Amino acid sequence: MLAERKNNMEIPKTMKAWVLGDPEQLDLKEKPVPEPGPAEVLVRIDAVAICGTDLEILAYGLPAIIEGGLPFNKNFTPGHEYMGTVVKLGPEVDEFHIGNRVTVEIHAGCGRCERCREGMYTACLNYGLNYGEKNKGHRANGFTTDGAFAEYAINHINTLVHVPDHMSDEEATLVVTAGTAMYGLDALGGLIAGKAIAVTGPGPIGLMSVAVAKALGAQPVILTGTRDGRLELGQKLGADHVVNIRRENPVEAVRRITRNKGVHYVLECSGASNGLNEAAQMVNRGGRVCLAAFPHEPVPVDIAYLVRNNIYVYGIRGEGKSATHRAMAFMEQRRFDATIIHTHTFSFEEIPTAIKYTRERIEDAIKVVVKMS
Amino acid sequence: MLAERKNNMEIPKTMKAWVLGDPEQLDLKEKPVPEPGPAEVLVRIDAVAICGTDLEILAYGLPAIIEGGLPFNKNFTPGHEYMGTVVKLGPEVDEFHIGNRVTVEIHAGCGRCERCREGMYTACLNYGLNYGEKNKGHRANGFTTDGAFAEYAINHINTLVHVPDHMSDEEATLVVTAGTAMYGLDALGGLIAGKAIAVTGPGPIGLMSVAVAKALGAQPVILTGTRDGRLELGQKLGADHVVNIRRENPVEAVRRITRNKGVHYVLECSGASNGLNEAAQMVNRGGRVCLAAFPHEPVPVDIAYLVRNNIYVYGIRGEGKSATHRAMAFMEQRRFDATIIHTHTFSFEEIPTAIKYTRERIEDAIKVVVKMS
Amino acid sequence: MLAERKNNMEIPKTMKAWVLGDPEQLDLKEKPVPEPGPAEVLVRIDAVAICGTDLEILAYGLPAIIEGGLPFNKNFTPGHEYMGTVVKLGPEVDEFHIGNRVTVEIHAGCGRCERCREGMYTACLNYGLNYGEKNKGHRANGFTTDGAFAEYAINHINTLVHVPDHMSDEEATLVVTAGTAMYGLDALGGLIAGKAIAVTGPGPIGLMSVAVAKALGAQPVILTGTRDGRLELGQKLGADHVVNIRRENPVEAVRRITRNKGVHYVLECSGASNGLNEAAQMVNRGGRVCLAAFPHEPVPVDIAYLVRNNIYVYGIRGEGKSATHRAMAFMEQRRFDATIIHTHTFSFEEIPTAIKYTRERIEDAIKVVVKMS
Amino acid sequence: MLAERKNNMEIPKTMKAWVLGDPEQLDLKEKPVPEPGPAEVLVRIDAVAICGTDLEILAYGLPAIIEGGLPFNKNFTPGHEYMGTVVKLGPEVDEFHIGNRVTVEIHAGCGRCERCREGMYTACLNYGLNYGEKNKGHRANGFTTDGAFAEYAINHINTLVHVPDHMSDEEATLVVTAGTAMYGLDALGGLIAGKAIAVTGPGPIGLMSVAVAKALGAQPVILTGTRDGRLELGQKLGADHVVNIRRENPVEAVRRITRNKGVHYVLECSGASNGLNEAAQMVNRGGRVCLAAFPHEPVPVDIAYLVRNNIYVYGIRGEGKSATHRAMAFMEQRRFDATIIHTHTFSFEEIPTAIKYTRERIEDAIKVVVKMS
Repeated sequence: MLAERKNNMEIPKTMKAWVLGDPEQLDLKEKPVPEPGPAEVLVRIDAVAICGTDLEILAYGLPAIIEGGLPFNKNFTPGHEYMGTVVKLGPEVDEFHIGNRVTVEIHAGCGRCERCREGMYTACLNYGLNYGEKNKGHRANGFTTDGAFAEYAINHINTLVHVPDHMSDEEATLVVTAGTAMYGLDALGGLIAGKAIAVTGPGPIGLMSVAVAKALGAQPVILTGTRDGRLELGQKLGADHVVNIRRENPVEAVRRITRNKGVHYVLECSGASNGLNEAAQMVNRGGRVCLAAFPHEPVPVDIAYLVRNNIYVYGIRGEGKSATHRAMAFMEQRRFDATIIHTHTFSFEEIPTAIKYTRERIEDAIKVVVKMS
Repeated sequence: MLAERKNNMEIPKTMKAWVLGDPEQLDLKEKPVPEPGPAEVLVRIDAVAICGTDLEILAYGLPAIIEGGLPFNKNFTPGHEYMGTVVKLGPEVDEFHIGNRVTVEIHAGCGRCERCREGMYTACLNYGLNYGEKNKGHRANGFTTDGAFAEYAINHINTLVHVPDHMSDEEATLVVTAGTAMYGLDALGGLIAGKAIAVTGPGPIGLMSVAVAKALGAQPVILTGTRDGRLELGQKLGADHVVNIRRENPVEAVRRITRNKGVHYVLECSGASNGLNEAAQMVNRGGRVCLAAFPHEPVPVDIAYLVRNNIYVYGIRGEGKSATHRAMAFMEQRRFDATIIHTHTFSFEEIPTAIKYTRERIEDAIKVVVKMS
Repeated sequence: MLAERKNNMEIPKTMKAWVLGDPEQLDLKEKPVPEPGPAEVLVRIDAVAICGTDLEILAYGLPAIIEGGLPFNKNFTPGHEYMGTVVKLGPEVDEFHIGNRVTVEIHAGCGRCERCREGMYTACLNYGLNYGEKNKGHRANGFTTDGAFAEYAINHINTLVHVPDHMSDEEATLVVTAGTAMYGLDALGGLIAGKAIAVTGPGPIGLMSVAVAKALGAQPVILTGTRDGRLELGQKLGADHVVNIRRENPVEAVRRITRNKGVHYVLECSGASNGLNEAAQMVNRGGRVCLAAFPHEPVPVDIAYLVRNNIYVYGIRGEGKSATHRAMAFMEQRRFDATIIHTHTFSFEEIPTAIKYTRERIEDAIKVVVKMS
Repeated sequence: MLAERKNNMEIPKTMKAWVLGDPEQLDLKEKPVPEPGPAEVLVRIDAVAICGTDLEILAYGLPAIIEGGLPFNKNFTPGHEYMGTVVKLGPEVDEFHIGNRVTVEIHAGCGRCERCREGMYTACLNYGLNYGEKNKGHRANGFTTDGAFAEYAINHINTLVHVPDHMSDEEATLVVTAGTAMYGLDALGGLIAGKAIAVTGPGPIGLMSVAVAKALGAQPVILTGTRDGRLELGQKLGADHVVNIRRENPVEAVRRITRNKGVHYVLECSGASNGLNEAAQMVNRGGRVCLAAFPHEPVPVDIAYLVRNNIYVYGIRGEGKSATHRAMAFMEQRRFDATIIHTHTFSFEEIPTAIKYTRERIEDAIKVVVKMS
């Protein structure tokens, strides 16, 4: 179906797209190819990675609680970690050209709310308002607007990042994951060189956090997790120390490694019940914790410890402050090999299998990429 | 004992001081008057307010877990919200003069650790290291070094704030409380004019937070609490709306008042079990919460909500960033009447009674001040 | 012509508008009333103040050097410090309602360039690109898009600020001037309470800088200038000290007043040749200078002094970071009386006279306001 | 003289030291070895680099205008870019150990002024006050306190940075230069990855700025200068583009390379008369310029351009915010080869020759290092 599409810029009227019916129910359908509006382009999808958040959306709906409810049975197409080729420009768009290879961020804010106006577009106050009478122009492709489990997708130009020639399609799908790690490091203060950092949880964001922190000069970078295989990947990506928490208490390990000083920053990427409490114990007085993952239920937190030790905690949504562009700069300069976390590849028709591999971590799948042709 | 001391700058060899024995045991003793070292002065105490933290120190020891253990039976004198008169200068001190009326901050950092070097002296990494072989020079008067339940105390010059002539001794003891509120507002971003703020908990810090936030131009300022009398004081200090949470759900009240927009910032000053969760629900997406109080036990926290809504949470220790100086500027300019929270006055000999009034909130005591003569 | 318009929301097809022909040539013409697009409203102008920048635009064109050249003979209508009434909403606009009284900011960024995305919309990289093939959506009403020397004007909703009932039309036109002062104080760091500030030049922005700095708690606030009448107004607006530089060297005066410590911040609002050098000498080591005015020719600057003393210098364009909203909060709370700088009022037909009064400072005109009915 | 000192920790009573008499007059004398006080250590000098500022101090005195006047004929020993071995600890010092190899920062603030308290210790308000009645504890070794053209020097522990085993003495002397570059990049905002940066002037700081900016992920990094040899070194250190301004106008070159977008940041390291004006033209609207060098006379500056384009200008003094520690992290991780700028080595007795090579750029000397044994 997708053969020889690489150099074919002709745009059909309809396209194949996976559509979400009831929870967990994805069907391959024919949809109209959408039209780019002002400040938008049409992107032909060339590759898309499966994200843990995709699994949540398929099962429970959107991670942000927004007006307009759940995405089920609304002809919605998921998929948000993608790259492709610009094939059509909206009116007055000259920032990109047809044929440009691009990878994408998820969020384009409405541009008219208070948060967007101060640059916090991933926290847009009009989140999800894109359709009908309340069209405020917000887009979160694959979250609230159609995503990339399809042949084509619309993108606001703000969400596009140029892909260098030497970078493969598969690698380019990983940029937004690295961008999320970069955004977390920004939240923590941005001045990372020489700072001691612990990353808890060696999932895709955790592993990319190790890579980006090391690229920014952090030392030491400590990675904690439960699986030795993942921790080894962390070492390849720049971790100076890894701690298997099945064998050593992670707080004690951090204190041992830092000679009782603690780290300056923790990127909590495990979502474990005790993640925040342990992170707080890992940092020194005045330290900072970024929450990039979360447990699904409320968990006991020692708030007194946070106050007594002047600890700041940053919940981050998405990949703001153009962090994806900055992460791409590191990847373009080959500061780390993101492809280490790319473990499996499937075809467009195999998207349900790709999702299954991700969910069940079959063959220790980390990043499963769907290649379109 | 203290009569006619006001204009008497003669310094005796010994002084009266309340000394902490076992938990809750305070005895009036005779102690040597201490000598100011480099960058220090000797302050004759003229007035000292009782703080909730004093109660904690008397009962449990220090709120910071530090090396060297607990303050019991170490000849330690508590008391940290005080003002007085400079009566002796350390070597080379010319920043202050004998006779200057001063009020004080608690924390003088060591000046040699990483945090002090970056200006975060209330989060000093050498917290409590002041004596003996590990004298790093840290001072937290009334916490780890002798405080003001005595006739005299040593202060590092960094902790001194000039008191204007028109300000009473009693009012001057309240400056550090206003400074803590100011520090919390700094942590939240500092640009407060026109921002919607909720303050939860109308204790001394909560009430001063209302006053300082309003002075900085916040609107609306919403105060929540359980006692109507306290909420009325909040209105006098600048609260545009007060919510008695016995009669209305505070989250719903904030949404009602802000027409469903939520506030930008919450200063959590209640220490209630659900304080952080409710604060998170009060702010809009991308909002910020400052924790200035805390429950004593770990409490369930909805971390997912923080992450999904890009909420930042700032635990603050003390009154950093010279916030006390900035709070004094407002009080000197009479932007609000801090004396509203000063409810009772006792003499030096009555310190145990003053503490009792504070602990048991006798006659709805808020700030109980001990006046030395 | 404009009689009884106050309660009349009917919108005619055409309107009266002053149009710029050759430099300095303004003619009253009939123009179509414009249509609001997405995220825009139509504002019926109720009052507009004359700004020094209007004079520059009439004489020389735009202060920003932008593509598309000069505004002469392009049917352009100037006027940017205005307020009015919302009379028509663009599609999907529900943030404002018909009948709302609003005052305006000048700049609505394109929302699609790098600067807009980070919240710096007054430094939009698509400045001036609003028309024809290069319509990037940037608006700077009265600069690059039609302004308020007319009966109606289009505004992006981001540029609107609600006017409280108790505030007069005339006072509301002054908010953007106060907003510029607020933006300058933000650039300087935002934490203003207790800081020593010098404002050089008692023009409208200088006088509003005094007022806003004092509202934020600055002390002392020192105002320098050449005319005693202006300096007296500065005192009414909150200046603690005024210096007539015809009688005292301003640098020496600042050192005298601050007991040789210098100020923390200078807002340079004079545009004098030696303004930056003197400002640098006024601040202490590590101090900061905001440039809100400028000489028209390059002037000698002692760069070595800036480097040796770690001085930061902030050129500011316009009234960014929603500073106008924050300034309005202070004005709504009556923290200062901005109407002190409003000296003259004219009718719509008298706009050329209003301009003449401003340019020639007739009767020491400061802010000349044109009232529409 | 200095033979076999490497492993000899015995400390003599006197030492050889070069002493500044009249301007430019350096004499080798015998001086007492100084004693470390609290928070200080004694460092045995192992290597010291010659800096351009040394030349200024020898000729004109201190770059900061401070109380206490000029350093001539005061038994003063210059030299500030040094490394060595800790040989004696002041009382209570346990942060370092005897035998530690360390490189140094210049500035230890007084710890008691407003700037030090906020972390800006290179802008200490008690700059130079170290001796006699006005001993405020400020140290700027080689500037206001004795430096490293001697066998031993005192250092505050805040100024020490551990040197890793694999790093040579010579390379370690270069860390403070890299730290100055890092401090400049901090002033510009700190988030450097993916940003376009121009560095003007390929002296030691300019070349290290190229290296540090590239290590932080800047792209492109553009270096301008007049000598092809220096520009080639810049390329080795990470410059993506070099511009010989004898052959191409640097502003036009930057616009050509960036496709007319301009750069985000300029580090002005040339001190040329037109350096600031050209830098302002190189950045895009809203861009930032760091001044790390300066012309000796006031020069014409187009202030209007700065204001109209919202450009911020940062004069930086020294190497603040512990930037030297962060630069060391990059050097320890071998992100760039700083030794490229080390061109000549001399012995302690040859310091006058080392200075001559630096001043006259003999054999295109960049960094001339004096090795003690």
